[in-house]
Amino acid sequence: MESVEVVRAFWAAIEARDWTAVGGLLADDVVVDWPATGERIRGRANVVAVNREYPEGWSIRVLRVLARDEEVVSEVEVPQVGVGTFRAASFWTVRGGRIAAGTEYWIGVGADETPAWRRDYVERIASPPVP
Amino acid sequence: MESVEVVRAFWAAIEARDWTAVGGLLADDVVVDWPATGERIRGRANVVAVNREYPEGWSIRVLRVLARDEEVVSEVEVPQVGVGTFRAASFWTVRGGRIAAGTEYWIGVGADETPAWRRDYVERIASPPVP
Repeated sequence: MESVEVVRAFWAAIEARDWTAVGGLLADDVVVDWPATGERIRGRANVVAVNREYPEGWSIRVLRVLARDEEVVSEVEVPQVGVGTFRAASFWTVRGGRIAAGTEYWIGVGADETPAWRRDYVERIASPPVP
Repeated sequence: MESVEVVRAFWAAIEARDWTAVGGLLADDVVVDWPATGERIRGRANVVAVNREYPEGWSIRVLRVLARDEEVVSEVEVPQVGVGTFRAASFWTVRGGRIAAGTEYWIGVGADETPAWRRDYVERIASPPVP
């Protein structure tokens, strides 16, 4: 599989809650960083566990995936019923058909406030409906 | 300029506070979205203004830039003196040597809490020092 296809298969396997398939797309010693919370998830079992145990109600929509050799970037939107909508920009390193590393920037859509100093320069994005 | 070089020049011009150069790298009708705050910044003058008026103390370190044709993704780290460190994953569309559109995922490094349900699966990333 091309590196882009590995990342597309990863998101599809998560969406399917197919934890065996998710694990098969991860290197044994995969390391995934979430800078916003300062979390590092180390090893296949932990990366699978975090996805498997994530409180339910979510679904995944892949917005785009692009790659340069082994570096892949994906953008996904994740509505969660009764909670809101999340987005992630994820930088992946794919080696030998498996994800070896990732750095993910997760945000809650519309979760943060616009500071007063820039209100004159911006508009509001139409919010995605809360599912 | 290749699309990657346009984005590198954009970040370099912001770091230099060279607002004329920043404006010259933007399409007249550029649109930049910040989903976390639900902000849309429309037009060259507003994109320049938001960068120019951003409270000082910041510097920009480009971590990586990759492209597929007109689509470019950058990852930057932005320490701000006395505040903390920010990161952004930014998806850009570059046309005719200028940035036509962007969607940026800005996060504060270590700003958010790790929920209790996943604490057994994660480690802490060593935080960057507060400048």
